[in-house]
Amino acid sequence: MSRTANVSEGLRLRIVLRPGFALGTGKADLLQAIDETQSLSAAAARFGMSYKRGWTLVREMNAAFAEPLVGTEKGGSGGGGGARLTELGRYVLNRYRQMEADADSAVAAGMRDLRKHLKPKPANRSRR
Amino acid sequence: MSRTANVSEGLRLRIVLRPGFALGTGKADLLQAIDETQSLSAAAARFGMSYKRGWTLVREMNAAFAEPLVGTEKGGSGGGGGARLTELGRYVLNRYRQMEADADSAVAAGMRDLRKHLKPKPANRSRR
Repeated sequence: MSRTANVSEGLRLRIVLRPGFALGTGKADLLQAIDETQSLSAAAARFGMSYKRGWTLVREMNAAFAEPLVGTEKGGSGGGGGARLTELGRYVLNRYRQMEADADSAVAAGMRDLRKHLKPKPANRSRR
Repeated sequence: MSRTANVSEGLRLRIVLRPGFALGTGKADLLQAIDETQSLSAAAARFGMSYKRGWTLVREMNAAFAEPLVGTEKGGSGGGGGARLTELGRYVLNRYRQMEADADSAVAAGMRDLRKHLKPKPANRSRR
């Protein structure tokens, strides 16, 4: 999802919990969409992401934590079965959202400061 | 630089200052390396980045802000001439580092909480 990371304004976090495993806005958004849709394919589709890519991210999260964050029901591995957050999955999502809110507050003034120094209008993209 | 984003532990910020332009740990690190080496090619090499990639990032930053963040001396566009931070470049780097420190403090407790729930040892990568 890093390819679309510049689309919406504001802060995006990437928290490297240990070398090789990070939790970021993309994974958190996916967890939240799973919670809202109860379906991995519907959740992935929300971000224009393939089912396979969504499943890879879920598998990575499930493997990194002591218990799975997402439970899948029959047909889970490719069959488009249901998916739901486990208790730990909900905890991790909520904790991440709280961290995001705390970080947002922490950098809000700096973001305003930096924006003051941007060019008034976006540069014409066809200009070098 | 997102390809190496998982290597070092901790928080990485990505601040989307407006749609299409973000400032993140990668660009900040590049600015700092330019300040330390006074050379874009030496700064880029520090991250295993091509001169061309470094120059693309610098040009993007210079175009987004009201004034350039990096000034280049003769031979600048490919000739490996000197590079240095402008006054605005130094301001942006320092402000970003302060935001990073503030965000780090804001998420430190959450990071500890999440790490408690990781698997005790990294999962064996050859295992499914």
